[in-house]
Amino acid sequence: MVRAPAAGRLLLVLILLSVLSPSTSLAQPPAALPPDVKATAANLQKEALAGTRAFDIVRSLTVEVGPRPAGSRAYDAAVEWGLRTLKDLGFSNVHAEKVTVPHWVRGAESGEILAPYRQPVHLAALGGSIGTPEEGIEAEVIEVPSLDAVDKLDPAQVQGKIVFYDVHMDREKDGSGYGRAVPVRGAGASRAAKLGAVAVLIRSIGTDNNRTPHTGGMRYQDGVRQIPAAALSIPDADLLAAEVASGKPVTFRLKLGARALPEVETASVVGEIPGRERPEEIVLLGAHLDSWDLGTGAIDDGAGVAIMVEAARRIGQLPKKPRRTIRVVLFANEEFGLSGARAYAEAHKDELARHVMAAESDFGSGRVWRLASHVDPEKLSVVADLAKLLGVEQGKNDSGGGADLGPMTPARVPVIALARDGTAYFDYHHTANDTLDKIDPKDLDQNVAAWAAVAYAIADLPGDLGRAPEGEGRE
Amino acid sequence: MVRAPAAGRLLLVLILLSVLSPSTSLAQPPAALPPDVKATAANLQKEALAGTRAFDIVRSLTVEVGPRPAGSRAYDAAVEWGLRTLKDLGFSNVHAEKVTVPHWVRGAESGEILAPYRQPVHLAALGGSIGTPEEGIEAEVIEVPSLDAVDKLDPAQVQGKIVFYDVHMDREKDGSGYGRAVPVRGAGASRAAKLGAVAVLIRSIGTDNNRTPHTGGMRYQDGVRQIPAAALSIPDADLLAAEVASGKPVTFRLKLGARALPEVETASVVGEIPGRERPEEIVLLGAHLDSWDLGTGAIDDGAGVAIMVEAARRIGQLPKKPRRTIRVVLFANEEFGLSGARAYAEAHKDELARHVMAAESDFGSGRVWRLASHVDPEKLSVVADLAKLLGVEQGKNDSGGGADLGPMTPARVPVIALARDGTAYFDYHHTANDTLDKIDPKDLDQNVAAWAAVAYAIADLPGDLGRAPEGEGRE
Repeated sequence: MVRAPAAGRLLLVLILLSVLSPSTSLAQPPAALPPDVKATAANLQKEALAGTRAFDIVRSLTVEVGPRPAGSRAYDAAVEWGLRTLKDLGFSNVHAEKVTVPHWVRGAESGEILAPYRQPVHLAALGGSIGTPEEGIEAEVIEVPSLDAVDKLDPAQVQGKIVFYDVHMDREKDGSGYGRAVPVRGAGASRAAKLGAVAVLIRSIGTDNNRTPHTGGMRYQDGVRQIPAAALSIPDADLLAAEVASGKPVTFRLKLGARALPEVETASVVGEIPGRERPEEIVLLGAHLDSWDLGTGAIDDGAGVAIMVEAARRIGQLPKKPRRTIRVVLFANEEFGLSGARAYAEAHKDELARHVMAAESDFGSGRVWRLASHVDPEKLSVVADLAKLLGVEQGKNDSGGGADLGPMTPARVPVIALARDGTAYFDYHHTANDTLDKIDPKDLDQNVAAWAAVAYAIADLPGDLGRAPEGEGRE
Repeated sequence: MVRAPAAGRLLLVLILLSVLSPSTSLAQPPAALPPDVKATAANLQKEALAGTRAFDIVRSLTVEVGPRPAGSRAYDAAVEWGLRTLKDLGFSNVHAEKVTVPHWVRGAESGEILAPYRQPVHLAALGGSIGTPEEGIEAEVIEVPSLDAVDKLDPAQVQGKIVFYDVHMDREKDGSGYGRAVPVRGAGASRAAKLGAVAVLIRSIGTDNNRTPHTGGMRYQDGVRQIPAAALSIPDADLLAAEVASGKPVTFRLKLGARALPEVETASVVGEIPGRERPEEIVLLGAHLDSWDLGTGAIDDGAGVAIMVEAARRIGQLPKKPRRTIRVVLFANEEFGLSGARAYAEAHKDELARHVMAAESDFGSGRVWRLASHVDPEKLSVVADLAKLLGVEQGKNDSGGGADLGPMTPARVPVIALARDGTAYFDYHHTANDTLDKIDPKDLDQNVAAWAAVAYAIADLPGDLGRAPEGEGRE
């Protein structure tokens, strides 16, 4: 850095002070958040940072219910837990909203490399996979480095084989490595089946080095033969790749007990903090109540449930409620087809125009570092003020906000999204390792603080966020 | 710190320089390592730091053999691997030495908390445990915080129950938390059985947060009823503790298919780099060839095998061999009763007086940071020179050096031990997570470098390390 002369330095300091000062200056637009709204929001934030009940809430869900996949009895227990918890915490209008969900079960499963070097491996069926015959499928393995690579193979190379997709996922703070790696999980089976494959194995979509495979939803393409699909843990994918690298033929035996059972009627859980002036206008705070079957669903999405419930509860404790209603929605079956989200958008379609904001917390509990949005571009000054209030970066105005908000997009419901530090999230996501010890209570409180401030501010704002631009958010 | 006047500071600098200088000074004893020995050792070290074959060796063992518990067919494959590898790498006198080992097998196993909140858990039978009846053992759980705490219970409290030892292990660079926590694994079952317990569960002896339980050997006390014993993964121990903390009665169902099969005759593997002047004198470099059944035995003890084999191989490549013989011993069954070590000490008893040094690498492949010993106290100047050569701390002269060296202690075989950084070792030790990806090839090379230098120096030393003091080393 070039040293400026003394007078120049003084000027520079004055300029910097004026830019950095939180007080209004002539160069800035007037604050979009009125001072009283801002003061109450800031106080909610400050108090939550000193400690909240959120960790107790997620502990209760993970210990008293645990794994709660769509269609399971445990999920019904989660609905009971949700109704009881919201009532106990003083929410109004606590109720279940009917949702019909698919019911896929894992059953027993195992995998073994048979040749050239016999070794058992750790794997998990992908959600929605069909099972294998009881005696398993035994076939030669062909490895491909990407989803697209399979299309370039000659069917003669693939016919009768197990395709092993060895796609590596990058660790990123914003979780963006997931979006790049995950298509193989959904589409890998049908792409390989078209060429005559008898099963697929994928390297787990994750960033860890544990023998805890990552499950997750997959889908079969219409008109293509369905074949079983499973994820190897990352060390096991390394092992299989090493056996392939030996240059000798590699054979594998896969046994999956997975199967689809009849659909189940169950529910999402809803509770409210009614608004004092315009209770018919809704600020929706969402999270999903279901989890995958392997872990206890702490980070995905017990943390989100705890964050949103506790943020709303704290707003409900204020002596003066905000103008609008805060509605907490704990969605059924996010993981396996967004059943709860679709049912909500359908059941509330006449009300969506009065949803002034929707948000979801479904990315663990790492520290909030950015606030993004999908609102009327004319209202971005409100978004800027919210980001300033939280002391975080402002992101783009193209956020989807969370999978469960997708079905509300056609109604142009405005979205606020908080990006959390997801550096470690995909070490545990969709694995048996998704357990309570992965949540830092202080980070969880920081999330509560941020959402309490944002939800209060929008619920009490004299104006609003307008309507979101047409088209999908893209977070 | 008090500032000294300028002249005083100059004097201080001169004193420090004289103390820190590697050159001899009048105040120091003459170097115990002759310059030519030291130069060759230093060169071995330097060259190994530039890259070795060690990672290839442990990759080969973990990929081509994998889990290789005592008595298994895979262990026999490991013996074949060891013989083939040592021959391929140019060792002399490569042979198997007969060892009879116990044969314990795990079988299928599972555990479930039944009440108050039903949840499946991840557990692993402890090595040597009996199994349960096929339908399992279903009983109430009583939690104790330590091994000693169980003795203070009234038998009426324990009768018919499953005792859950929730002993937490501390993470330490030197692994000393293990020694403090591990007694419960060996002795917990019999201590609880004396009071009428029907089974025991322990919190895994480990430092991770993965749902990968840590197995390890246990033993039954003579004359006490044998009851099944298993380790819960650490998140599962947390879960069980949380259910106990609810204050409601906790019941658990444990199913272990573990059983003992007849003993098996197998072997340790030995190979040598013959000495040029006194080939009958031995510098022994040991590691153990067996592993637990859950992982592929990369850190325990594939790393040790690779380090010692590669260190010796590099010495064997020297144009001028050292005076004495370097003998690599890959011991059978360290994990489940030291069978290979006992057999070696017995078969070679007439030769142990000519073992001028014994060493074992059995603590992963973290960076070497200290050199300890168990040698004639008159010879500690040699040890000091070795530590200086490696650039590491000098430890105490009470080191056991490794479990497989124990049976040689009565023969007062001198021991050199290299402490490695074990901060992460107990995250993976005795779990399914003990896989190749846990080894950093550069750290592995640093271990090879250190052992090559030490083994060469002692093998070529005109003098020796005397005999170790009477009594056990205590590392």
